[in-house]
Amino acid sequence: MADVTRYGYLGPEGTFTQMALLAWSASHDGEHVPFGSVDSALEALRRSEIDAAMVPIENSVEGGVSATLDALASGDPLVVIGEVNVPITFVLAARAGMPRADVRAVGTHSHAWAQVRGWMDANLPGAAYVPTLSTAAAAAGLSSGVEQAYDAAVCAPVAASNHGLEVLASDIGDRAGAVTRFVLVSRPGTLPERTGADKTTVMLFQRHNRAGGLLELLEQFAVRGINMTRLESRPTKGSLGSYCFSIDFEGHVLDERVGEALMGLKRVCAEVRFLGSYPREDGAAVDVAPLTTDADFAGARDWLRSLRGS
Amino acid sequence: MADVTRYGYLGPEGTFTQMALLAWSASHDGEHVPFGSVDSALEALRRSEIDAAMVPIENSVEGGVSATLDALASGDPLVVIGEVNVPITFVLAARAGMPRADVRAVGTHSHAWAQVRGWMDANLPGAAYVPTLSTAAAAAGLSSGVEQAYDAAVCAPVAASNHGLEVLASDIGDRAGAVTRFVLVSRPGTLPERTGADKTTVMLFQRHNRAGGLLELLEQFAVRGINMTRLESRPTKGSLGSYCFSIDFEGHVLDERVGEALMGLKRVCAEVRFLGSYPREDGAAVDVAPLTTDADFAGARDWLRSLRGS
Amino acid sequence: MADVTRYGYLGPEGTFTQMALLAWSASHDGEHVPFGSVDSALEALRRSEIDAAMVPIENSVEGGVSATLDALASGDPLVVIGEVNVPITFVLAARAGMPRADVRAVGTHSHAWAQVRGWMDANLPGAAYVPTLSTAAAAAGLSSGVEQAYDAAVCAPVAASNHGLEVLASDIGDRAGAVTRFVLVSRPGTLPERTGADKTTVMLFQRHNRAGGLLELLEQFAVRGINMTRLESRPTKGSLGSYCFSIDFEGHVLDERVGEALMGLKRVCAEVRFLGSYPREDGAAVDVAPLTTDADFAGARDWLRSLRGS
Amino acid sequence: MADVTRYGYLGPEGTFTQMALLAWSASHDGEHVPFGSVDSALEALRRSEIDAAMVPIENSVEGGVSATLDALASGDPLVVIGEVNVPITFVLAARAGMPRADVRAVGTHSHAWAQVRGWMDANLPGAAYVPTLSTAAAAAGLSSGVEQAYDAAVCAPVAASNHGLEVLASDIGDRAGAVTRFVLVSRPGTLPERTGADKTTVMLFQRHNRAGGLLELLEQFAVRGINMTRLESRPTKGSLGSYCFSIDFEGHVLDERVGEALMGLKRVCAEVRFLGSYPREDGAAVDVAPLTTDADFAGARDWLRSLRGS
Repeated sequence: MADVTRYGYLGPEGTFTQMALLAWSASHDGEHVPFGSVDSALEALRRSEIDAAMVPIENSVEGGVSATLDALASGDPLVVIGEVNVPITFVLAARAGMPRADVRAVGTHSHAWAQVRGWMDANLPGAAYVPTLSTAAAAAGLSSGVEQAYDAAVCAPVAASNHGLEVLASDIGDRAGAVTRFVLVSRPGTLPERTGADKTTVMLFQRHNRAGGLLELLEQFAVRGINMTRLESRPTKGSLGSYCFSIDFEGHVLDERVGEALMGLKRVCAEVRFLGSYPREDGAAVDVAPLTTDADFAGARDWLRSLRGS
Repeated sequence: MADVTRYGYLGPEGTFTQMALLAWSASHDGEHVPFGSVDSALEALRRSEIDAAMVPIENSVEGGVSATLDALASGDPLVVIGEVNVPITFVLAARAGMPRADVRAVGTHSHAWAQVRGWMDANLPGAAYVPTLSTAAAAAGLSSGVEQAYDAAVCAPVAASNHGLEVLASDIGDRAGAVTRFVLVSRPGTLPERTGADKTTVMLFQRHNRAGGLLELLEQFAVRGINMTRLESRPTKGSLGSYCFSIDFEGHVLDERVGEALMGLKRVCAEVRFLGSYPREDGAAVDVAPLTTDADFAGARDWLRSLRGS
Repeated sequence: MADVTRYGYLGPEGTFTQMALLAWSASHDGEHVPFGSVDSALEALRRSEIDAAMVPIENSVEGGVSATLDALASGDPLVVIGEVNVPITFVLAARAGMPRADVRAVGTHSHAWAQVRGWMDANLPGAAYVPTLSTAAAAAGLSSGVEQAYDAAVCAPVAASNHGLEVLASDIGDRAGAVTRFVLVSRPGTLPERTGADKTTVMLFQRHNRAGGLLELLEQFAVRGINMTRLESRPTKGSLGSYCFSIDFEGHVLDERVGEALMGLKRVCAEVRFLGSYPREDGAAVDVAPLTTDADFAGARDWLRSLRGS
Repeated sequence: MADVTRYGYLGPEGTFTQMALLAWSASHDGEHVPFGSVDSALEALRRSEIDAAMVPIENSVEGGVSATLDALASGDPLVVIGEVNVPITFVLAARAGMPRADVRAVGTHSHAWAQVRGWMDANLPGAAYVPTLSTAAAAAGLSSGVEQAYDAAVCAPVAASNHGLEVLASDIGDRAGAVTRFVLVSRPGTLPERTGADKTTVMLFQRHNRAGGLLELLEQFAVRGINMTRLESRPTKGSLGSYCFSIDFEGHVLDERVGEALMGLKRVCAEVRFLGSYPREDGAAVDVAPLTTDADFAGARDWLRSLRGS
């Protein structure tokens, strides 16, 4: 990573994505460049204007982030080189002096709105919802005074603070412990080292949309004892009912069991898009199933070699 | 369905959801009631204020509609009783007299924006995006003159026409043939008749989040020759990496093979939420795999009975 | 079993089969009738000349007993109603006065010969082998003085004793702990009661001899958590490479999981021959996999009924 | 094979095994040495007294030949290097002048007796059965005049002719088209060339005797599209219910899909005994499943290499 000096992220300043990037940057220097959308950040990366981009990939409440999954699934290849999990905490913020009882409209990103609906129904049942491009943009709009459509914002505590807003209520998310997982994406080139606590991400396109097709793909993992940690279906953008699958699983492409599973998928899929092997943020060593260690594979390969040489 | 007289839908007037309801209503009378969100429509249904609700469930480009999937997955039980597929066509519309070249900001729903990004980049690269609550709301805002944040809307042709807007460009979706599938939801009670061309929808919650868990669920379908037509993972709202699965498959709960598969799922899942059996809109007869017809099951059951009686 | 009064067995007196029948008869009265072969005993049973027949089905060293497996697989239906395991111990016996060192030829059944080959090679390396119809027949031939082809017999201790022979060496089997399993066969009619410690025996004929055919059959057991305890392939007597499968598994036809598995097999097989459910001799309660108890199945059925009734 | 000069076979002269060896020798020179049992032939091979041994492995009516399967499964490694299928035809033969109606006892090998039981019941219902070491030995005994226990033999036509016996009835097997498959066994060393029409034989020992164990083994074949042509369970000689599996499948150890399947089995089995890859006698090209050709595997490997190198 020594050569990564320009990091893009889904901005503006004060987004949860920036928080993810700041967490990463604690141990990695570099310049931070905000972008208005996941797509624009990844396109800048593909054009080599930046060296890596931090983007959200899934949220424990709202699920997969379609924009990211789809942007990685097509276009020039990109790979994930790291991940950061950020606890999600929302505040209700307004310009100084606004009483909470007077709030009639609330601006925020639709994903954030979905996560505070319960609190809103209970505490500000009459407030209208106004969608914004990001939670930080909602705060920025209030601060600038330009925005008239809403008089309070749902955003991260840091965004309220950045924009000099007053916090009317804290920790208003309906689910305690909500987390968003961000991934740091780069162009193919340097493969992160194998640490023994790694994940690999792929996008699988089925050869035909037939019954049992997904079963056949999952067996390629099961027969090598590989544990999946995320599976999302995404439309292939063709006809209704045509899907591809975005999958995270434990292990590194340099692991024997992972290599064999990837080769199996390559054979049976129409396309396998390799989206990177990278260290797990939690550093939890992968629980390798018995009989699927590298030593088991190496032993089997030596044995086969002896049979063939005989 | 004779007793369905009040239909809710995701409004306002001019949404694609209303178009789905109008298509349905060609053969079913009733009053149409717009709601501001999927959640509010389904809550009204649960409170018996309406008899059924038309809501979007998946789009061929954008994928599953999380709000609908999640609203069906929790709360009092609801069931799907029908489906409607609506071709999605977008127009760029503005108040009369606005030249296309002068458009600086475009309002629309984020799902619609995702589907016209390519056209926008090619034709109005400088235009900013302003999120709105729905495509119809974007058109309505322009029409009312209240909205100042954008000067053109991306919406359905009918919304442009409803609101007296001028169409600056037609058919601007990036994917030809885009389709959104809508489902008509009702309270449990009357099960739609078996037609031989049916689908069933379920939400499956795994008993443990272990490796191979999904494989075990899919085998319950495979061993009875049942074809899935949609599979979406959704977070269970607990910790990151905990998923449930929203699945559509061919066949009716009254079919023998479907009944046995559902019983198998009921045994191995933590929870199976049955979300209805209903006729396919296309009327295409289900392709029942050999040896899994009702006659095959009935023959096997008679044979077992004879063994047990002996 | 109250009406079983005439038991056939693979004779003559002094065979291991008679020992199995004597063990069974400790708790069941009746007349014992020896037969010269498994086939002749089972044919007499089919003609109602006897009420049940004790026959060997597998040996822990020699494997399945083809004559029994094949006789059960065709002809009028018969069912297993009980099982008996008999420890196999061989002696070398001769007429009084014959020194062990003078033995030049040894008579016995080919299965017994296979089990004492190691001892013979070590202790009587020069002795020739003379095949006989049974171990007991080898002893009888010596005793009668008619037989000149061999001067010692390998047989059960009881056969040596029955025929007044002298034991030259005891416990000469190459494998300590060898066991033969015998089954008591009857005509279909009364199904043995379910005890919670039962086995079921079936013969499965595949619909086509294709790749994965056996896998498909085994999945019918696996998906219901049923444990197999014996699997033997047998030729179907047609062309080379055409097989059927004789299988024992845990559970009783009255168990829900067994009933559903049998129905599944009935659908996917060309033929399923049900060969009985009966108590295990060891009385060891079947280890029913979680989620496959009768209560689990009954709960699932009730739930399905409620869905269908809605 | 140039160095194979001494062939052992299951004798004496006139056995079906000799016929198999003669068929093989039409294209391979060498001396032929009869042995009294499969075991003694294979032991001589292990001691390098002969270079190869022809032994029976399965019969289309009687099934697997236990002596051969077990002798290959233990002891110093041996490998199959070829196969020969021999149509099995039996005659009833006697010394000149014996009328068929006067036959009171018939000598033959127990496997042959099992295959002519129907004819005997219909034509000589009163005749007793006397077991012999082989069909050819039955003919030899009659010819020598030494044997008094039977007055006719069931044997191959060539054995009747070799021993100057008169044929009382021809083609008396109960199953038309019966075939025995013989294999030519050698010591490991030269691997037969890959022909595209090959078979491989293995003996698999499970790691634990648990439910689903066999399923797991079969999946190793299924996931690589490999077709099994023979599967026999054999007791491991330990406790009742402990089995190993003798399997023939299509393909050569040098085929990619076979190599990967063998490595998979090596990992999950307690032991895999490789018993050779050799040309099919019928020369029928193996039907390689789509996506499992060597080219498919090579392509997948190249792709993996590029991922790892990146």
